[in-house]
Amino acid sequence: QSRRFCPGFSTGAQPLWLFESESSTYTYLLADADTKEAVIIDPVLETIDRDLKFVSELGLKLKVAVNTHCHADHITSTGPMKKRVPGLKSAISKCSGASADIHLTEGDKIPFGRHCLIVRETPGHTDGCITLVTGDQTMAFTGDALLIRGCGRTDFQQGCAKRLYKSVHEKIFTLPDECLLYPAHDYLGQTVSTVGEERKYNPRLTKSMEEFVEIMNNLNLPKPKKIDISVPANLVCGVHSI
Amino acid sequence: QSRRFCPGFSTGAQPLWLFESESSTYTYLLADADTKEAVIIDPVLETIDRDLKFVSELGLKLKVAVNTHCHADHITSTGPMKKRVPGLKSAISKCSGASADIHLTEGDKIPFGRHCLIVRETPGHTDGCITLVTGDQTMAFTGDALLIRGCGRTDFQQGCAKRLYKSVHEKIFTLPDECLLYPAHDYLGQTVSTVGEERKYNPRLTKSMEEFVEIMNNLNLPKPKKIDISVPANLVCGVHSI
Ligand SMILES: [Fe+2]
Ligand SMILES: [Fe+2]
Repeated sequence: QSRRFCPGFSTGAQPLWLFESESSTYTYLLADADTKEAVIIDPVLETIDRDLKFVSELGLKLKVAVNTHCHADHITSTGPMKKRVPGLKSAISKCSGASADIHLTEGDKIPFGRHCLIVRETPGHTDGCITLVTGDQTMAFTGDALLIRGCGRTDFQQGCAKRLYKSVHEKIFTLPDECLLYPAHDYLGQTVSTVGEERKYNPRLTKSMEEFVEIMNNLNLPKPKKIDISVPANLVCGVHSI
Repeated sequence: QSRRFCPGFSTGAQPLWLFESESSTYTYLLADADTKEAVIIDPVLETIDRDLKFVSELGLKLKVAVNTHCHADHITSTGPMKKRVPGLKSAISKCSGASADIHLTEGDKIPFGRHCLIVRETPGHTDGCITLVTGDQTMAFTGDALLIRGCGRTDFQQGCAKRLYKSVHEKIFTLPDECLLYPAHDYLGQTVSTVGEERKYNPRLTKSMEEFVEIMNNLNLPKPKKIDISVPANLVCGVHSI
């Protein structure tokens, strides 16, 4: 945890991450330095050209495009990406109910070269939310389950505050304190956190379950602007003609 | 370079970086894990509360707030930050002509704990632009001299395309290929690059100096929205009553 801003440990132990400003979505690209096999997490329709340009310039072989859940605020690019990258497979959790080449459940591995991402089911924001943890537990991609000093909303799309609380405490807060956390969104310009920090400073998840449920039931958030087109589109991997 | 997306090398060899969306500015926070001494680079007025909250939650002792140059697109928070953090010193290059506690020139060191940032003068976008390189040359904070697949404009504020070309080639492209590059801005949601990548793929800086000057003289960019208030404010470390 305390090492996170320190120069001098090694170079580049981090994913390439990319930001889509309309929906404040982070897209992550991970690769094996030797085999060049790569995985992309939560790519967004609007930024497909930018993302594929990086893949090509860096000589990566994109194997899997995975969504952490069925998004309500933006449309995934996994469908169109599959058309442009031969052999690319889409992946999403089985519980999401969405179509994809690979349906993931607890403990499944997404290998890329000698590395892999391991699936932890973290429902609560939606039924099908997953957190993807690197094999060495140095990084976790939490989707909308846990955000930096926040969490995904639980008031629509099968959301359940109790379930989210349990998911975060049992599946994310049990990772090592120094594990870096990469969320699907951030609305304040924050970029990365750690398990230790969120265990200590997350204003919602540090509360008791009862208090958490109370907070989540009183957020009174507006419906996401794109939900009517995003959810149906994302249920079929964004291959809609939108 | 090729290691940049690889899990498993070590955890957290990266700065904490923060984004200000109105001006698309990145602010960076670096610290020594043991002594907790910290440096902040290019903090923005609008996000001072967010930034100081991180400093406090992480138990950091902020020693120096440094600007890579006198910004024209946003107002620095170094002035107000000095009022809120006892002992904090502001720093900017001597060539910027701006007031600050520390005036930096080529080779100067900004120590924090057992680490340091070393100043390289990289004029061209402005006279007073500097690039800050970590002592181990694993990271460089390039300000507006070199952006990801781009560079700062050279059509105002003493800008000079030839000078910028020379600065990037002599002072940044001479760093190790795998050195991570953190710019002051990105308008496309990109977050970090490497010297090797920019040497190969920067669409402007890979050209000859003549072609580069031609490109830079024909960008026809609008004047930055905030230049009339930002430049005067930043010349006095943002302590204006704005
Ligand atoms: Fe979501
Ligand atoms: Fe600038």
